[in-house]
Order: sequence, then structure tokens, then C-alpha cells
Amino acid sequence: MEPCSSTMQLTRAADYGVRVMIHLATLPDHQRTRLPALARATGAPESFLSKVLQALCHAGFVISRRGQLGGFELLAPGRQASVRAVIEAIDGPIRLNLCLSTGLSCKRKNHCPVHPVWGRAQEAMLDVLKAASVAELALQAAAPRA
Amino acid sequence: MEPCSSTMQLTRAADYGVRVMIHLATLPDHQRTRLPALARATGAPESFLSKVLQALCHAGFVISRRGQLGGFELLAPGRQASVRAVIEAIDGPIRLNLCLSTGLSCKRKNHCPVHPVWGRAQEAMLDVLKAASVAELALQAAAPRA
Repeated sequence: MEPCSSTMQLTRAADYGVRVMIHLATLPDHQRTRLPALARATGAPESFLSKVLQALCHAGFVISRRGQLGGFELLAPGRQASVRAVIEAIDGPIRLNLCLSTGLSCKRKNHCPVHPVWGRAQEAMLDVLKAASVAELALQAAAPRA
Repeated sequence: MEPCSSTMQLTRAADYGVRVMIHLATLPDHQRTRLPALARATGAPESFLSKVLQALCHAGFVISRRGQLGGFELLAPGRQASVRAVIEAIDGPIRLNLCLSTGLSCKRKNHCPVHPVWGRAQEAMLDVLKAASVAELALQAAAPRA
């Protein structure tokens, strides 16, 4: 009924963001990579990936270096970031349902029996996404296939 | 970056669907309720709720009775349904990331270290949504406030 959004689905932007972070983390420290190479590595369209990288720079996970030896470089906080932190750097806070937004007070909250269910479902999901770090996933990506 | 969809968020349709199912389950067996009353009870716009109810009828959770004593009536499978089943009746299968769709084979799946993370996060969330039934939530809604 809402063709542009799938229920409870990660946005493409966040998916590409996680991919590009893991790819950068498989490279040696301080290595710089240009946008076209990152687009090839992640399968993301360049123009779209450029916006994703902008958000990751803004979060302090990646830095964009100018000049002939320029390119995108992963910073230490990016390497240590969790999958949750990468998603939220791109799309803002994960809220399984609007009623879980801080600041947005749902009038139904106090008598709505499903409110705590959304809260528990979100917590269970976030626990998994917090436990997985970019650095650890990059190690797995670099490891020889079983 | 995708203004019409929030990352990992339930659609409004599914949210209203869960609300209307719980409301119907608080009513006596076989009671019929007309659309305007359901819209008032759930806070959903009538035209939108009408589409949601259509999907719930299609799933066999609700039946629409015609005539002077007509209205929407909850069926036994609807009362026993889980929150997950209600969401999926409205929006189709919950897939935290596109790469988890059955039938859609992700080329990256075999070497992508984050694929199992999406799978575990989805499973953790679905476990919570499967464990909560419409009937049980309706009992809580009907119970006196603590």
C-alpha cells in the first residue's frame, strides 16, 4: 500500500553505507580510495554512494582527502563503529514504529498494549546490530572462504 | 535520503492494522463494527483504514458483513493471529534487508559478512512479534490500568 517503503526494511542508503564501511575496513590503515573504486566494490551507483559517504564523513567515520593522492579514508571511530551506528549515521535513529520516537509523544502510549511489544522487538534487533562492529565484519570479509 | 521511508520502520498501514485487530478482539464474539467507529477507535483515516481492513479480510482474519446489521467482525484465526502475521497480511513478508528475500538471490550473499547479521537481527525481532498474539494484547487492553 506504500510502494516506496517496505515494512521494517533497511533503506538502500544504509545498506550501501554498511557495505562501504566494511570494504574500507578491509584496506590497510590510511589507504585512500576514490569514489569510482568504492562504487565498484559495493555495487552502489556513484551519485547515490556519494551522498552516503557524505553522511559517513559528517559522522566522523570517514574523511574525504583532496588532491592527487586524495580519496576516502576510514577513521578510527569508523573502524570501531557498530552496524547500528553506521545505519543511524545515514538514516537517523532506528525506530521500529513512530510511537517509539523520543520527543514524539504518542497519545495512545499509556493504554496501548502493543507499545511494549514494539519496544521489545526493536531492542532485540538493536542488540544484534550493536554487537557487530565494522572491524570484526571486515576481518570476516578478508578471511579465506570456508 | 529517502524521505518517504524511514529505515526499518513499520508502515502506517501495518500499525493501523495491528490497532484495529486488537480493538476488534476486545469486543464480544461476533460483534460487528462499522468503518467510522473503527476509524474513531484506532485514530486512522477512514479511507486508509478501509484498505487495511480489505487486506485483513483477504487474509481471513476479519469478515465484512453487509446489510443493516453489517460491519466488520473478527474471525477466530484473526483472534489467534500474532502481531507478525497481522503485519505480513498487510505488507507482505517482513525482510529487514532486501538480501533476505526468498527468491531474490543476492550475488554478494556467499562472501558478504553482514548477511548473517541481518538474518540474526531479523530473527530476533520476529521472535518478539511472533510471541505476541492479538487475543493476548486485547486482554491487556481490556484490563484495568495499573
